[in-house]
Amino acid sequence: MIATHTLVSFFLETRQHTENICKPLEIEDYVVQPIVDVSPPKWHLGHTTWFFEEFILKPHKPNYQLFHEDFAFVFNSYYENVGKRVVRNDRGNLSRPGVAKVYDYRQYVTNEMRDFLLNLSANSEEDISPEIKEVLLIGIHHEKQHQELLTTDIKYILGNNPLLPKYDDSFNENPLQNAQQKWIEIKEGIYEIGHKNLEEFCYDNELGRHKVYLQDYKISNKLVTNAKYLEFINANGYKDFNLWHAEGLDWVKQNNISAPMYWHNIEGEWHQYTLKGLQKLNLEAPVSHISYYEAFAFTQWKECRLPTEFEWEVAQQNFEWGSRWEWTESAYLPYPGYTKAPGAIGEYNGKFMVNQKVLRGGSVATSPKHTRATYRNFFQTNLRWQFTGIRLAK
Amino acid sequence: MIATHTLVSFFLETRQHTENICKPLEIEDYVVQPIVDVSPPKWHLGHTTWFFEEFILKPHKPNYQLFHEDFAFVFNSYYENVGKRVVRNDRGNLSRPGVAKVYDYRQYVTNEMRDFLLNLSANSEEDISPEIKEVLLIGIHHEKQHQELLTTDIKYILGNNPLLPKYDDSFNENPLQNAQQKWIEIKEGIYEIGHKNLEEFCYDNELGRHKVYLQDYKISNKLVTNAKYLEFINANGYKDFNLWHAEGLDWVKQNNISAPMYWHNIEGEWHQYTLKGLQKLNLEAPVSHISYYEAFAFTQWKECRLPTEFEWEVAQQNFEWGSRWEWTESAYLPYPGYTKAPGAIGEYNGKFMVNQKVLRGGSVATSPKHTRATYRNFFQTNLRWQFTGIRLAK
Amino acid sequence: MIATHTLVSFFLETRQHTENICKPLEIEDYVVQPIVDVSPPKWHLGHTTWFFEEFILKPHKPNYQLFHEDFAFVFNSYYENVGKRVVRNDRGNLSRPGVAKVYDYRQYVTNEMRDFLLNLSANSEEDISPEIKEVLLIGIHHEKQHQELLTTDIKYILGNNPLLPKYDDSFNENPLQNAQQKWIEIKEGIYEIGHKNLEEFCYDNELGRHKVYLQDYKISNKLVTNAKYLEFINANGYKDFNLWHAEGLDWVKQNNISAPMYWHNIEGEWHQYTLKGLQKLNLEAPVSHISYYEAFAFTQWKECRLPTEFEWEVAQQNFEWGSRWEWTESAYLPYPGYTKAPGAIGEYNGKFMVNQKVLRGGSVATSPKHTRATYRNFFQTNLRWQFTGIRLAK
Amino acid sequence: MIATHTLVSFFLETRQHTENICKPLEIEDYVVQPIVDVSPPKWHLGHTTWFFEEFILKPHKPNYQLFHEDFAFVFNSYYENVGKRVVRNDRGNLSRPGVAKVYDYRQYVTNEMRDFLLNLSANSEEDISPEIKEVLLIGIHHEKQHQELLTTDIKYILGNNPLLPKYDDSFNENPLQNAQQKWIEIKEGIYEIGHKNLEEFCYDNELGRHKVYLQDYKISNKLVTNAKYLEFINANGYKDFNLWHAEGLDWVKQNNISAPMYWHNIEGEWHQYTLKGLQKLNLEAPVSHISYYEAFAFTQWKECRLPTEFEWEVAQQNFEWGSRWEWTESAYLPYPGYTKAPGAIGEYNGKFMVNQKVLRGGSVATSPKHTRATYRNFFQTNLRWQFTGIRLAK
Repeated sequence: MIATHTLVSFFLETRQHTENICKPLEIEDYVVQPIVDVSPPKWHLGHTTWFFEEFILKPHKPNYQLFHEDFAFVFNSYYENVGKRVVRNDRGNLSRPGVAKVYDYRQYVTNEMRDFLLNLSANSEEDISPEIKEVLLIGIHHEKQHQELLTTDIKYILGNNPLLPKYDDSFNENPLQNAQQKWIEIKEGIYEIGHKNLEEFCYDNELGRHKVYLQDYKISNKLVTNAKYLEFINANGYKDFNLWHAEGLDWVKQNNISAPMYWHNIEGEWHQYTLKGLQKLNLEAPVSHISYYEAFAFTQWKECRLPTEFEWEVAQQNFEWGSRWEWTESAYLPYPGYTKAPGAIGEYNGKFMVNQKVLRGGSVATSPKHTRATYRNFFQTNLRWQFTGIRLAK
Repeated sequence: MIATHTLVSFFLETRQHTENICKPLEIEDYVVQPIVDVSPPKWHLGHTTWFFEEFILKPHKPNYQLFHEDFAFVFNSYYENVGKRVVRNDRGNLSRPGVAKVYDYRQYVTNEMRDFLLNLSANSEEDISPEIKEVLLIGIHHEKQHQELLTTDIKYILGNNPLLPKYDDSFNENPLQNAQQKWIEIKEGIYEIGHKNLEEFCYDNELGRHKVYLQDYKISNKLVTNAKYLEFINANGYKDFNLWHAEGLDWVKQNNISAPMYWHNIEGEWHQYTLKGLQKLNLEAPVSHISYYEAFAFTQWKECRLPTEFEWEVAQQNFEWGSRWEWTESAYLPYPGYTKAPGAIGEYNGKFMVNQKVLRGGSVATSPKHTRATYRNFFQTNLRWQFTGIRLAK
Repeated sequence: MIATHTLVSFFLETRQHTENICKPLEIEDYVVQPIVDVSPPKWHLGHTTWFFEEFILKPHKPNYQLFHEDFAFVFNSYYENVGKRVVRNDRGNLSRPGVAKVYDYRQYVTNEMRDFLLNLSANSEEDISPEIKEVLLIGIHHEKQHQELLTTDIKYILGNNPLLPKYDDSFNENPLQNAQQKWIEIKEGIYEIGHKNLEEFCYDNELGRHKVYLQDYKISNKLVTNAKYLEFINANGYKDFNLWHAEGLDWVKQNNISAPMYWHNIEGEWHQYTLKGLQKLNLEAPVSHISYYEAFAFTQWKECRLPTEFEWEVAQQNFEWGSRWEWTESAYLPYPGYTKAPGAIGEYNGKFMVNQKVLRGGSVATSPKHTRATYRNFFQTNLRWQFTGIRLAK
Repeated sequence: MIATHTLVSFFLETRQHTENICKPLEIEDYVVQPIVDVSPPKWHLGHTTWFFEEFILKPHKPNYQLFHEDFAFVFNSYYENVGKRVVRNDRGNLSRPGVAKVYDYRQYVTNEMRDFLLNLSANSEEDISPEIKEVLLIGIHHEKQHQELLTTDIKYILGNNPLLPKYDDSFNENPLQNAQQKWIEIKEGIYEIGHKNLEEFCYDNELGRHKVYLQDYKISNKLVTNAKYLEFINANGYKDFNLWHAEGLDWVKQNNISAPMYWHNIEGEWHQYTLKGLQKLNLEAPVSHISYYEAFAFTQWKECRLPTEFEWEVAQQNFEWGSRWEWTESAYLPYPGYTKAPGAIGEYNGKFMVNQKVLRGGSVATSPKHTRATYRNFFQTNLRWQFTGIRLAK
């Protein structure tokens, strides 16, 4: 069991890190919501704060005073169990509460939480109950998830502004892969999948460690590079309907897709908007910001396929990962024996287990200590604003 | 290898059966398309005919004269490889060619096919080539699939008409299940899945017989009845968001769903539109015309789950099936080693392998000899106009 | 006051004429509704019949038996005062009642009406009351309006079918204008506008004869020809935003408009779908099937304008009209003193008096004796499926 | 001719007034765009500045340096003649340029303009040319129009925020009308309409003073009050379809309209969000924030009508006006002889002359010296975010 003071440090570091991510922003950047999937940074700051207020302070801290009675309404998210949600689409229309007020809210809740936790732990007879510890850990990891979303949402906000402002010169989103490409071969047989659930934190969707039977397969040690993806584009891959799912082809046509998100062809030369600003396309960097549909079409063109999430998990110790969320062929489904936790916390994962694909690994935007080999990320097949990439299997 | 004369009989019987399905229709019923998923009966008649003309007569019969040069345009479907398709949504706007003309087209192609096949087979030196046999079999099974769609589309057209006309008094869509409910128990272990691919016809998506590892599970010997589903409704199941996927809940709200398709509450008493016309709801019949979302929510309410398609296939010899297409928890994905056939035939299955669910079994509308234990049907999670049902697992 | 036997003849002729219009149709043509503005011919046949049943037979004929109790639901139109309307968009999904049944309905109501009217008139003491006469006249003129819609809706149904079937070889929709173009000059001053309301039938929107003050103006004696409109196209008129209303330009862009409806450029040569089938564009015929937006842009390009409806009415005795409905610059608004009649009849005109434009004249599809110099037709500014044309003023 | 120094003062006062309107705002309030009709305050500040840069400084000031080369793209509006416009819908997604930068832009252009104008006027031989004076005046009045929009857009942004923040305690948007209600009677005859075009500024759409013939009419000396409008609501006016245009009724149903914008029924008591914050509904204040559809339905219920714009203009000296923009029955159409000015300035008015209604008068948000008796404001019939009201005629 993690010691309380370690937990408190973890909590405070996480709170601080969220605010560090926002340091390069101007106040105006906190407010806008250009598409429904992207939330205003201000909202992320408030929502992660509301989580601790709603699930720890309100039920557990004696005489806790809400910071503002309307904030639960404004910063609640998808939790049907906790009051009427704000339609997600509206977040970008709310100029108030202002940014300063949201930071006050953060500070207030952080302080209240710290006092509450230290107080409990100082009192040797009661310490923090396992139930509160569990919710606290979920809250911390919830905030870490939003740290990644903050980064990708900021990228979207700035990268879709006609002035293309940079975010931070020190953010290297395009790390190179040094190894030579080779195929890792895995033998047919029974393998174990899922989290071992001992000391380390994990989400409920990783639990239920169980056996799966895999066939012989090969998986690449490297992610697909921009150079390779450019070959696909130049070979007219976006036009060759034989490579695409019917649904993917409709998506390509309706949205006039002809390259990954953030690519700009400027006078015949490919550029990419990055968190450092607009740059010439780095051919050796792993391709990013592609939908599942594009990832699939690319594999078809290479006469390969995407790995399943099980193949990925079994093979992952043999390659480097963590710079791109890797689309898998696996649909996001419950593991054997999965059941939703009761109440609002139970809405966290289970209710999204339909019509989404699992992504494995992590990305340059993933918060430190937030991902692991059993982590199951998931998104709809058309989404591109995350740092998504491709690893081939066959 | 199936003898040619057997194949020719199979072909002719299939062609005739399609037309038998349409016998109760008035000419006007052949024309309309009330929703995009439902095609006008006239179109099914033409499309199944065009398949034989396009893939057998045109490429293989010497000097074959097209019945009408524009019909390929009118009756082509989703085949991107064969010319510009008609947007599916427009089928219901085409009054011409008229029904009589479409029957002429059928007769012409049926006769040309028969002459072509018998001629080949009469000529002992050449007989029908395996390639043509394969396309012929696909064409016949393709037409059998459309026979089921014809039936369900006719039900939709008549069942959404304010006059609620009946289709055919002899069509019993609500067969009873005589057995007592019990749980069939299957032991953890390795099982083989997929078609054995010997003599019997199957689709490419069933091939690639392979091992899977299953955990201990139980599966019901009976389908869920209308009586049980009514309990779910009466327990306010459509309102309890904890039972639903987020996406399913949105679907319920946007479409004001509160009962299966074709249920009508008339002065407090539940009725169902059936192919025999409007009837009092038969409580002992298996529930039908529900979406995957509803099937899932019902299982949650019962604290059970849907079986995977693998669990279904392994257990199916222990229960009766065939009156409802049974939603499974499995996403529709390729089996190991699956590759699309080249050309238009290859568009048949592979390009739909995303964001759909597998259904197993068959239904009262499925054509004779068309389904089997390895058959993988698939639909989007919101669709209800097929005879879909629920089998519980846990 | 019109004599009853004259009225009965007028009624019977009108009923017959509607059916004559449909003679060239196949049954399938009666059923489809390709766009919301176009109704299935079957619906027009039923709706014009329902009018007499609802407003004359039901309230006035003793012991009248409805032909079918559900038909009011199926064939009602926009009349909020008479029960729940069928959403207009659904008309094309109704295969039943079938065409034969609808003709039975017509025959039944026509006979019942004839008997009712002759009976009344034979009974010298009561004859037909003025109230019934008025509704009867409205019903007849209502049916004449639908005769024009039947013709234009049939043109749309056939002209948007890939087989481009012809309607009737004897229908000349492109009469030539023999006169030389000249400008008719009208002097500034006070003029009287509106119907004189003596013996002749007119709609309520023409009543309230009143004075208007007109400035000096000139109006062309001829309609704009296809040749002139082609000059506008060739001068890039559809691309020159200075010629268009902002709303019109959006409409052009969203719908990719580049020529009048029914024009087809086939290998560089302009053709037009007409009721006689596809033909080479007749350059001397008056342009037809253009929206108000296009009519306006054309006038801007010619540095002219459209006449107001008042200018048109004052000048009309000096030129030939009747082959095209002529867009005017006038918005469709009530004349001074206009009040809606009470009840359903009152919904006829008044409730459309916003965001529509007045068209004056008549067209090749207008029924005999249906239009007159004071007639105020009206449509939304984007609609093109009527035989609409342009007359210049300045 | 206005003296140059007067013009310069007028320019500087106007620039200052715009900024005064924004004084109560927080930075976040400048950024959002909750609906397409409402622009972010930041955009208004930039757009009114861009107008002077684009049409005066760029073409006329020697060696003028653009403040930022991309700002024309960001702050251009509907002017098709001046480069590619930003789709209006996107304005609310732009966090950059930030508010401070936009104020820098304002300051820069204001200073450059002042220097340019004073320099010209100091140079006795050239002074400001009439052409520049005209554009300058248009620019100033253009900014005054945006001052009104700024106010109404700010009201929308704050009034649709769940916290309902107030704007400014000193802004009285609900002035009372002291007079007793009476009917002003105007006699039938010829009247002159339009601006006299001497010294006073006016827009091109007011020019072309011309005669119209009016019938006898009566017009109320007072605007309809909230009390009267509440009677309409309580009499079920929103449900009585006989009162509404067909299009208006669709609008009511689709948008669930049951009261003016900004009305809130809180525990049975009507409140109104005002620029002073939420307040109890002032029954004696003139009703505001209603659409044309609602204004029309109210007049029907009162068995009256709206005045035409001509009736309003002729009668206006007999009553007080200026607190509400008054919907008229007149469609927004060109006066006789109207022609668009060439180039971008010509896009100002003419291209909106379709499917909009004229509003006369002015409102509590109208800038000082910006309206006059001949001023023709215009909006689409569904819009409510302006301070719109109702004056009865009959």
